[in-house]
Formats: sequence, C-alpha cells, structure tokens
Amino acid sequence: MRLRNKKWAQPWLEEHADLVINQQKATDLKGDWHSVFPVNQPIQIEIGTGKGQFIIGMAQKYPEINFIGMEIQEAAVAVAGRKADEFPEELPNLKFIYGDGAGVDTYFEQGEVSKIFLNFSDPWPKTRHESRRLTYKSFLEGYKAILPEGGELEFKTDNRGLFEYSLYSFNQFGISFVPDGISLNLHDDEEKMIDNVETEYEHKFSEQGFPIYKFVGKFN
Amino acid sequence: MRLRNKKWAQPWLEEHADLVINQQKATDLKGDWHSVFPVNQPIQIEIGTGKGQFIIGMAQKYPEINFIGMEIQEAAVAVAGRKADEFPEELPNLKFIYGDGAGVDTYFEQGEVSKIFLNFSDPWPKTRHESRRLTYKSFLEGYKAILPEGGELEFKTDNRGLFEYSLYSFNQFGISFVPDGISLNLHDDEEKMIDNVETEYEHKFSEQGFPIYKFVGKFN
Ligand SMILES: C[S@@+](CC[C@H](N)C(=O)[O-])C[C@H]1O[C@@H](n2cnc3c(N)ncnc32)[C@H](O)[C@@H]1O
Ligand SMILES: C[S@@+](CC[C@H](N)C(=O)[O-])C[C@H]1O[C@@H](n2cnc3c(N)ncnc32)[C@H](O)[C@@H]1O
Repeated sequence: MRLRNKKWAQPWLEEHADLVINQQKATDLKGDWHSVFPVNQPIQIEIGTGKGQFIIGMAQKYPEINFIGMEIQEAAVAVAGRKADEFPEELPNLKFIYGDGAGVDTYFEQGEVSKIFLNFSDPWPKTRHESRRLTYKSFLEGYKAILPEGGELEFKTDNRGLFEYSLYSFNQFGISFVPDGISLNLHDDEEKMIDNVETEYEHKFSEQGFPIYKFVGKFN
Repeated sequence: MRLRNKKWAQPWLEEHADLVINQQKATDLKGDWHSVFPVNQPIQIEIGTGKGQFIIGMAQKYPEINFIGMEIQEAAVAVAGRKADEFPEELPNLKFIYGDGAGVDTYFEQGEVSKIFLNFSDPWPKTRHESRRLTYKSFLEGYKAILPEGGELEFKTDNRGLFEYSLYSFNQFGISFVPDGISLNLHDDEEKMIDNVETEYEHKFSEQGFPIYKFVGKFN
C-alpha cells in the first residue's frame, strides 16, 4: 500500500512526537518503553499498522495491554496517529513508531514485547523480493530477539501466496502452531470471529468474499 | 465415504487375491514386498484409496515406481481392483491392500515405503473422533515407522477443518514442510497442476469450485 504524500503529515508528526515516536527516540527508549505509558503492563506491537484501524481497536478493547503500531510510511502513520488523537483520553495505552520493522531489535530489548501482530503485510510476490516480506527469516530473527520465550506471533492476510510462503518460513524457523492456531477462512469461523478485531484491508477483502487466512504461532 | 455392499465383491476379491492382498497376506509380506512386483523399485502407498482413480493414474504415469493402494472398505477396494484389472498388462506396478491404515507398520518395515499419500481422508469433524483421522498422531507414528528418514507425506483435501487440524498435527509431530510444500488452492496454481493426478473426490469438489488444499512434508 502506497499512500499519496500528505503535506500536513510532517508538521503534524512534529507536533505529536509523544504519540508518534520517531526512530531516534524509539532507539533511545530501548528497555524503557514502560516510561511512555501511564500503566506498566504488557506491550504488544503491530508491524505495518497502516491507517491504524486494528491497533486502535485493540487498544480500546484491551485497556490492560499497552499497544504500539509501527509503520514505515509517513502519510500512513500520520493518518493513524491523527485518528487515535481524536480520543486521547480513551487511548492512554496506545503509541506509534514511525519506523522500520526491520529494526525492531534496535527499539526493544528481549522480552520487552509480549506479542507481535502482522496484518495484511505487503506480499512482495517476486522471489527476488523475498527478503522484504515481513515473514522472511531476517525479520523473524528480529521478532525472536524482542519476544520472551514462547512469545506469540499473529498473522492475518488475504494473500494466498504470502500465507503459503509464511507457513513455510515459520516452519523452517521453528515457530510452532498454537492449538487451533490456523484458520483458512477466518470469517467463516464463528468461534474465532468473536474476538476478531478487523483491519482496513481485512474489511475490504472479506467484504469482497476473499478468504482471510490467520496463523498464531509461538517462538520456542 | 460409505459404499453400498456389493454382492460380487467378496468372490471377486477371492479370485484376485494376487492383485488385492488381504491383511493376513500383507502381514506375511512385511519386508518382502518387492517379491509381488516384477521390478524391484521404490514403493509408494496411498491410504484410503477409495475407488482407486488416483493410484491407478499414478501407476500409469510413473512406471518406475511400484504403487500400493490401501483401503478398508471391501466394496471400494473391489471397485478399485476391478478397474485396475481391466488393463493388467499396463499396470504391473500396482497392487492393493484390503486393510486398515492403522496397521501400516504390521505390513511394512522401516524404509520399505518411500512415500505416503493421503487423499480426501474422512474428516471426522467431532473432537471425540479425532483419533480416527488419518493425520492423528498415532497414524503419523505408523507412517514414520515405515518411511526412511526424510520420507515424504503428501496430503490433499477439500476439507478446511481437517486441513487446519492436520497442519497443526504435522507441526506437533515435527513433520516439516518441503519447499513450496503447501498450496491453499491447488487448482489455481498452474505450476503445481502440471503433475497433478486427480482423485475422485478432488474431481467432484474442484468442479464445484471448492479450493483444494495440499501439503507435502517430510519426516525427520
Ligand atoms: C498492505 S498495508 C496493510 C495495513 C494494515 N495492517 C491493514 O491490515 O489494513 C501494509 C503496511 O505495512 C507497511 N510496511 C511495509 N513494510 C514495513 C516495514 N518494514 N516496517 C513497517 N511498516 C511496513 C506499509 O507501509 C503499509 O502501510
Ligand atoms: C472420502 S474417501 C476418499 C477416497 C479417495 N482417496 C479420493 O480422494 O477420492 C476416504 C476413503 O478412505 C477409506 N478409509 C478410511 N479410513 C481408513 C483406514 N483407516 N484405512 C484405510 N482406508 C480408510 C474410506 O473407506 C474411504 O474409501
């Protein structure tokens, strides 16, 4: 997903540097993230948060968890931040990082993040772009470096090729399924939908009738 | 799948005991299966062969491999056998076992079978019937006991619940994906369809537009 540049984004981000944290500050916060949230509680992050629908929904639904949405695109993270900023008193447990998922281990130390979400990550279908996929082994190494032992990774996508590739990549890396940790048509799975928080892409593609794939695994 | 009983089946099977081998004889052949084929070459088996379309197709396509279709239902294995018997000179490399997949390690010794196929296995959707699924761990133990190290398991199904369960079960058992070893819509995957040999169920369900799932993994 590539958004058009937004002129307001850069000045808005500068004014809201406490909500949307830049890479420099994120690096400085390594090991100290509890300091940016009013309550010291587990931290879960989404990488590639887009316009933020999922992470905002999660933060509303689970006030007992602190959430961080990471996003590499300035326009997207600004839209997400501005949306979250509409009701700041409701979302003390939500921050964003304007940064690259490839750098997670420069922002977080081992065990600082208890769970990682990937939603509708860019598929990069060409083999020569494999290393850009957020489920490529170098990314998985980064995730492993910030999760505790047994820490979980949740992944949703509509993209069949990316999902097939990712299952293989997870298996190669030794990430194991949690029980009932896979769904090949999430929206047809009543039980799993009860707690489902939708993303922008998920809404769009499931409405068009495409199956949504979901995987939940843990690093050992 | 439950077929109606066929009166001709039992006498036909008795007359064709060299083509469709019964459990007693299969047990006696343990370690000695090369003796039933004209050529001593690798053996691959299908468990739950139904009316035999797949295994007959495989035997025609790969004369350099010996195939055995196992089937627990008398009427089904008799239909399969009769079909194969229509062109016996073309199929010297095909036999059947009228027997139970739960007993594979009483019929074969370690390494005697180089690959196992499961196609459209009965789903047994109720949790209390989990142990009847051909991808339940006790079955996987049996498969492991007859395959060589690195031996492969191929599994196709239209049944989403069974496929989800099986991926979990394979993962728990330590069966790993071969590269490109998963397809979540086989019939939409041109490259993988080139060598695809269809089963009866596959034909029926893919025609109705259901996705066909496929997994290829190996025992380590
Ligand atoms: C297809 S969009 C999906 C957005 C949202 N997660 C959803 O499900 O609707 C993928 C997003 O991931 C972001 N992204 C891609 N690579 C990234 C990376 N290395 N680090 C952080 N974000 C990344 C893109 O900028 C884009 O906003
Ligand atoms: C749904 S049918 C599929 C037939 C065929 N493989 C196909 O794809 O069209 C499943 C078959 O597996 C057989 N079967 C079930 N459990 C078995 C077992 N434990 N051992 C051998 N065959 C079994 C059933 O009798 C039935 O013929």
